Amino acid sequence: MCDSTVAAGCGESDEKVKKNRHLYKKVLNVNGLDQTVIVDVDDRLVDVIRKQLGLTGTKVGCRAGQCGICSVLIDGKVKRACVVKMKSVRENAEIITIEGIGNPENLHPVQAAWIKHGGAQCGICSPGFIVSAKALLDQNQSPSREDVRDWFQKNRNACRCTGYKPLVDAVMDAAKVVRGEMKIEELLWEFKDGESILGSFAPRPSALAKVTGRWDYGADLGLKMPGEMLHLALVQSKVSHANILSIDYSKAEKMPGVECVLTAKDVQGTNRINGMATLPGNKCDGFDRPIICDEKIFMYGDVMAIVCADTSEHAKAAAAAVKVELEELPAYLSAFEAMEEDAMEIHPGVPNVYYELPTIKGGEVKPLIEKSAYSAEGSYYTTRQPHLILEPDVGFSYYDEDDRLTIHSKSICLYLHIDMLHRALGLDADKVRIVQNNMGATFGYKLSPTCEGYLGVATMATGKACYLEFDMHQTITYTGKRAPSNIDITMSADEEGRITALDYQHIFDHGAYSEWGDLVLFKGNMFIGGGYNIDNIRGYGKLVCTNHAYGTAFRAYGSPQALFASESVVDELALKMGMDPLEFRYKNVYREGSTTPTGQSPEVYPLPEMIDWLRPKYQAALKKAEAESTEAQKKGVGVALATYCVGGDFADYSEAWVELLPNGGAAVYNCWQDHGQGSDMGTLTIIHECLRPLNIPVDKIKLIMNDTAMSPDGGISAGSRGQVFFGNAMKDACDKMLVAMVKPDGSYRSYDEMKYEGKEFLYKGNYASGPHCSMIDEKTSQCKPMLMYMYGMIMSEVTVDTATGKTSVTKMTMAIDVGKVINRNNVDGQMYGGLAQGVGLALSENFDDLSKHVDLVRCGLPFIKDIPDEMELEYFESPREQGPFGASGVGELPLSSPHASVVNAIANACGVRIRELPATPDKVLSGLKKL
Amino acid sequence: MCDSTVAAGCGESDEKVKKNRHLYKKVLNVNGLDQTVIVDVDDRLVDVIRKQLGLTGTKVGCRAGQCGICSVLIDGKVKRACVVKMKSVRENAEIITIEGIGNPENLHPVQAAWIKHGGAQCGICSPGFIVSAKALLDQNQSPSREDVRDWFQKNRNACRCTGYKPLVDAVMDAAKVVRGEMKIEELLWEFKDGESILGSFAPRPSALAKVTGRWDYGADLGLKMPGEMLHLALVQSKVSHANILSIDYSKAEKMPGVECVLTAKDVQGTNRINGMATLPGNKCDGFDRPIICDEKIFMYGDVMAIVCADTSEHAKAAAAAVKVELEELPAYLSAFEAMEEDAMEIHPGVPNVYYELPTIKGGEVKPLIEKSAYSAEGSYYTTRQPHLILEPDVGFSYYDEDDRLTIHSKSICLYLHIDMLHRALGLDADKVRIVQNNMGATFGYKLSPTCEGYLGVATMATGKACYLEFDMHQTITYTGKRAPSNIDITMSADEEGRITALDYQHIFDHGAYSEWGDLVLFKGNMFIGGGYNIDNIRGYGKLVCTNHAYGTAFRAYGSPQALFASESVVDELALKMGMDPLEFRYKNVYREGSTTPTGQSPEVYPLPEMIDWLRPKYQAALKKAEAESTEAQKKGVGVALATYCVGGDFADYSEAWVELLPNGGAAVYNCWQDHGQGSDMGTLTIIHECLRPLNIPVDKIKLIMNDTAMSPDGGISAGSRGQVFFGNAMKDACDKMLVAMVKPDGSYRSYDEMKYEGKEFLYKGNYASGPHCSMIDEKTSQCKPMLMYMYGMIMSEVTVDTATGKTSVTKMTMAIDVGKVINRNNVDGQMYGGLAQGVGLALSENFDDLSKHVDLVRCGLPFIKDIPDEMELEYFESPREQGPFGASGVGELPLSSPHASVVNAIANACGVRIRELPATPDKVLSGLKKL
Repeated sequence: MCDSTVAAGCGESDEKVKKNRHLYKKVLNVNGLDQTVIVDVDDRLVDVIRKQLGLTGTKVGCRAGQCGICSVLIDGKVKRACVVKMKSVRENAEIITIEGIGNPENLHPVQAAWIKHGGAQCGICSPGFIVSAKALLDQNQSPSREDVRDWFQKNRNACRCTGYKPLVDAVMDAAKVVRGEMKIEELLWEFKDGESILGSFAPRPSALAKVTGRWDYGADLGLKMPGEMLHLALVQSKVSHANILSIDYSKAEKMPGVECVLTAKDVQGTNRINGMATLPGNKCDGFDRPIICDEKIFMYGDVMAIVCADTSEHAKAAAAAVKVELEELPAYLSAFEAMEEDAMEIHPGVPNVYYELPTIKGGEVKPLIEKSAYSAEGSYYTTRQPHLILEPDVGFSYYDEDDRLTIHSKSICLYLHIDMLHRALGLDADKVRIVQNNMGATFGYKLSPTCEGYLGVATMATGKACYLEFDMHQTITYTGKRAPSNIDITMSADEEGRITALDYQHIFDHGAYSEWGDLVLFKGNMFIGGGYNIDNIRGYGKLVCTNHAYGTAFRAYGSPQALFASESVVDELALKMGMDPLEFRYKNVYREGSTTPTGQSPEVYPLPEMIDWLRPKYQAALKKAEAESTEAQKKGVGVALATYCVGGDFADYSEAWVELLPNGGAAVYNCWQDHGQGSDMGTLTIIHECLRPLNIPVDKIKLIMNDTAMSPDGGISAGSRGQVFFGNAMKDACDKMLVAMVKPDGSYRSYDEMKYEGKEFLYKGNYASGPHCSMIDEKTSQCKPMLMYMYGMIMSEVTVDTATGKTSVTKMTMAIDVGKVINRNNVDGQMYGGLAQGVGLALSENFDDLSKHVDLVRCGLPFIKDIPDEMELEYFESPREQGPFGASGVGELPLSSPHASVVNAIANACGVRIRELPATPDKVLSGLKKL
Repeated sequence: MCDSTVAAGCGESDEKVKKNRHLYKKVLNVNGLDQTVIVDVDDRLVDVIRKQLGLTGTKVGCRAGQCGICSVLIDGKVKRACVVKMKSVRENAEIITIEGIGNPENLHPVQAAWIKHGGAQCGICSPGFIVSAKALLDQNQSPSREDVRDWFQKNRNACRCTGYKPLVDAVMDAAKVVRGEMKIEELLWEFKDGESILGSFAPRPSALAKVTGRWDYGADLGLKMPGEMLHLALVQSKVSHANILSIDYSKAEKMPGVECVLTAKDVQGTNRINGMATLPGNKCDGFDRPIICDEKIFMYGDVMAIVCADTSEHAKAAAAAVKVELEELPAYLSAFEAMEEDAMEIHPGVPNVYYELPTIKGGEVKPLIEKSAYSAEGSYYTTRQPHLILEPDVGFSYYDEDDRLTIHSKSICLYLHIDMLHRALGLDADKVRIVQNNMGATFGYKLSPTCEGYLGVATMATGKACYLEFDMHQTITYTGKRAPSNIDITMSADEEGRITALDYQHIFDHGAYSEWGDLVLFKGNMFIGGGYNIDNIRGYGKLVCTNHAYGTAFRAYGSPQALFASESVVDELALKMGMDPLEFRYKNVYREGSTTPTGQSPEVYPLPEMIDWLRPKYQAALKKAEAESTEAQKKGVGVALATYCVGGDFADYSEAWVELLPNGGAAVYNCWQDHGQGSDMGTLTIIHECLRPLNIPVDKIKLIMNDTAMSPDGGISAGSRGQVFFGNAMKDACDKMLVAMVKPDGSYRSYDEMKYEGKEFLYKGNYASGPHCSMIDEKTSQCKPMLMYMYGMIMSEVTVDTATGKTSVTKMTMAIDVGKVINRNNVDGQMYGGLAQGVGLALSENFDDLSKHVDLVRCGLPFIKDIPDEMELEYFESPREQGPFGASGVGELPLSSPHASVVNAIANACGVRIRELPATPDKVLSGLKKL
């Protein structure tokens, strides 16, 4: 009657009692109404809420109680639903989820305030924060800012985007509404007819859905897929370097629910991802990363097989039953180990140091340094900073109506990922479609494929929809990281404090795979010494393959490494000279006639003015620090110059379309991928502004974004290029449409008039940076690689506890020039968030020890009390000629050097110079002891 | 790599294209926000909404576009989502579901009005109606009542509970709010401290959840089950009578997703449901119904095997692959066929006429009839009326924490179903738990087990949670029906119009199984002639087994058959005498000294007063009908006496508990099963009223109901016994608690004081009817079987279209005595709904032809325009000594005889006497032609 090999529990009566699965009926009061629910008492509340009750407004992140994004109220108390087992939920418990806080037609004040203050960037943490804040206001209608911070700290509500300050702002405003001092309407933005929204605080279109739990992320869509879908589980390596001898899945493929087990031989294409080696001198061709490892394991987590099964549990159980025989090889977990003479080639045939790039600008530097009045030198190390996104990596795949392999993921470069993957999978590019899901941030890690390859292989093998969700451990251990960098640097200056020469050696540990490695090495050459006019530079960068996590994009890609070295050594040099570090910078920053380290002339020179603005604040801060410092609590102030570029390097291109709609509105088609930075708002603002002659209200602008089947290739969402490249392409499309619509009398044709005259409705716009840039000379790095640069000055104020060595950042101040601010809410949010990540980079974040750095907390994720509540921003909006409406890029600038300002402030506070990040208490304490 | 027998689509590259499953990405605007959804274009919108988006507020009924309970708005238009394929839903379509209309904190006026007017009884149709009404008000803020009826008719919004009138009332009130003429607050009921809610219009506790789509029915809970659950599909017979020769499931059990296939040999117990044969003379022992048929098929739909699989689709596909070899036998589809001499015994060893019951009251009737001044006679047939519930039968099962087999279903007799099933399944009674799901009505059919046995067998065989949902075809063809009845009746009267004698032969076709058959036959003997004092009766009832659908409970169980005959013949007799039918009734109805057909003295005598109230309305109606009648449209008026009893017959018992809670509130524990009649409100009102000395607000009364693991056995929810039996048991429990709580000074102890004094918190109440009743004498039917009776007089006004024969009921008026009205909203709702079902019974409803009567429409479900909008109710609240607060039963009375009043009105209108229901146009037309 039943097949005992698959039908567990379907046997003789004696065995039955043991095999019975026991469920519990509970009545819960969910969002105000009683609801019967049948549960497995070992299941987590978050799964019951999401998977059983279908309330996907509650998001799930770490599954370990660390991040708070799954926060709900149980009997009025904030609980992280991922760690609440159903056995501990009492009968009749009152559960409130985000859906019970308010809804689009009837927002709770906290939700309205969240929208107003840009509290939802990627939005993955918003439901949990809002639920938590509501509970706070239920018990305290008049919290202080510190009360709010204590509350979120206590409840472990983590945010990786906003820098926390806007969230406190939001709660303070919501409290006013709760107290009756403000009407909720005052928090709600309303579009006024005829108004320009350029530079306004208008909230992003997605905000309403995000604060009400209605914004579906990949895992939510995964729960909402139709009918049968296969769940994938990966068979991954637990060692970092090995030869694969055999893979035995004979047991696994017979396990319950298993459809099939796939290995490298099931990959129908080349099975080698195109890592996009860009620069001619690169000794790696870029085809070093397999989708499924065939011969070798290159890093921890490398995938050897994929199990496809009916449920995630079945897939994981079967994956655990796959037997793999490995020949372990020496694991080179740092660049220096991989550079040792006896080290074997990790990718046979490619030297471990696979790309080298010198900078030669001006005269020889060694003699100049020797004869300069002052010089300083140091060896600086930045960590393998983990992105610590709160949403685990996730994606799914299926064949679409045109038989295209369709992959939904967190990709931030849809068309590029098609290029990288299609031959590896064995499909023509036009048979692959990639769609970006709404997502809980990337900060760059999704410039690399993660789940896409596995999903593609699985759907191609089975013909079925497939779903793959990394857990947080996989997300942390098996995605790309910021490449760690060792920079030995020497800088010299003359008597008057003018920098005379710069010399450095730069070793970049790019981990197991080469993706983008040559370009990030070049970023070092661009930014070591960036911001200062230095006539003579000699530098040498080496890109090294190791067996650690592969390097990938991370916000400010390349510059945090470069600027940590150069902004530290600038400070050290100034101190040696007895010169104030800010004034030393003032003397050397770009002015008319200056050139960048690659010999490019900057297009704007705002830095002197920014320092003038900062100076009085800096001096006051120094005085305050001195006055307040005690032996126990030493206070200090540090500054750092910030700079980043609008990249695509050398030659970049973008396309976007706009279409006139029958209702008089416009549809815009682009693939401005959104990490959470707000490309929806960027798109809306640009289109609205470009089409102002037509007076289209914002709700008649339809955004059709981030699906390669629907919208054109505008390039990647990385390198702060989006605003400029997508913006210019959209502007071009709009200009073309307006030209077609304008009548001789200067008025515009209606849709019907256009139709009557047989005119096109769809206009394709594009923008190319090539004419404004030049290719690199690999012998010298001299070139005009970038369209434009952004500038900032960051000041950090810190307190060092001399007993523990613990550093607290108490305030950050930043002068910013990103050109014209397109949307103030978005740009503020980027600044706060970038600065906060800089604090993490400075003080806590790391991914190095594979046994320790395996969760958000142990990787050093900053919580609200780790980030200063005081953050002051000032914009210097130098218009950029090549930017749409004068705008430049935004996202990377605030993370280019805040860590350097913090480290400089630590030195200022207590005399300890940290040269190896992060500046953890033990290192500071050890420094204090050596003083 | 993959097993080709199970892993479809996992093969060679050549075959792949054919096997790929294609999905579509769509962006839909769902309840105001854009949402990406991946769909199979052949899927139905209702499944995407419910299963993918998790919006279970949209219910699913017929899946054929007939009932409208799945109504949603697409681009503002009402659509039945069960027939909308995703391929026809445009990109960016605006979908509004009940969740988008309003929510508990922010009700739409239609929702508020629905609560006020008792629009949600079982509530399964409420979301669809509310969505539909909202769309109407969006386009017409000032509809007339007829506009509203036209709208619901056009959009096929069906309701089986309310009789429609309250729904029109609700829309008219909502329109006032929409127009700004009324505040929504005026529609909302608020409990006032200290107030009694006895007899009030207070809305039932479940109303809020029902009108907001938050009331989870069985199919909703099925979507919300944890983890793996097996879906069952039944292998059913398509013939009505056969021997089973062989069952071959060797192919089915190997099909994708199949866990096992179960047949009779997998049933661990006796495999015979206890049909509860009650009366000693019954020749069937009641054990005639198998769970899974082993040797014979007794009726269409009988189950031979159960497939357990991972999905419903897999289970159904495998069920279709089970091969069954049958030896077909003659099918006896009516009592007369089964009574023929050469008919074989359907259940071998049990005669097809398996129970016979005479009535002998007073003297021999034949001589009396002969010498009476007047007599009338006729042969009357009532149909196998289908319940036509809009929610398909559904249930699920699992082992609970105490290893009890737990079955959730629509059972209206939880403890009794344990009794009926546990030995058949092979478990002790205490190892079976039954829980009632919220449900879309039963009207009695769930006095019989339906899915419970299959679920029990499957969970016992597999140890796993199992789910079984009938489709509407299965629900109609394979659940019990009202037993069709043939009554040959003769009644005589003297010169003065006093009834002298009654004689009848009664043939009851009880279908394939005996459940409750003896008791329903007895109901005939109780009610033929009921309401009138008739000293001399001879009757004879025969209960017959056939191969048609088994007889089960249906609202007014037994009396609609009896009263159709006796209320028709009363009319015919009056007309023969030239006496007004109402006055003839007035002369003969129960007065002091009268006895019922079983010789019982009624406990109240309200009928004369009720006729006095009705008389002027009746006379006015007659005049109006005469004045308005034309040759084309003949109008008429008919009356019928209505009566039913509070059954459990002979000796009945109930238990309920009440518990004092720490918060000063009370918990009540009972199993007052709710069909939708509102046992939650009945419970709340009784407890609130009983505990008024404690002044407990309604929101502190916690209802813990309808789970045998939590609440005691209070008996079945049938036979209008609930209000009296559960009510009395609760009253007893409350009285006991108050006695324990009262202090010497007459005040009451608090919870803390009770605790301090070591007093119990939980009090068990009970009630037994045995002392007030007596057992039947099976030779004469004489006894005092029932605790009490309810009475009514129903007047129907009809129009007969003489060209088509179509009858329309234009108004119904009912004088009602159900004792004290406990909640007016509930009781009104029962009356309207019962009258409407009477119209259906009179004019359209039938289940007879197995090829024709397979869906709601073809079974004659009345839509709104089939039911009169004018319904007038008047209560005569004669207090009942044995009723709690003087209340009696409610639910059955209004369906005891409305069909008779309609048929009498047809005769009055056009002279055609319909003796075989339903009075379809063809029968009326044929009658008109014969005149």
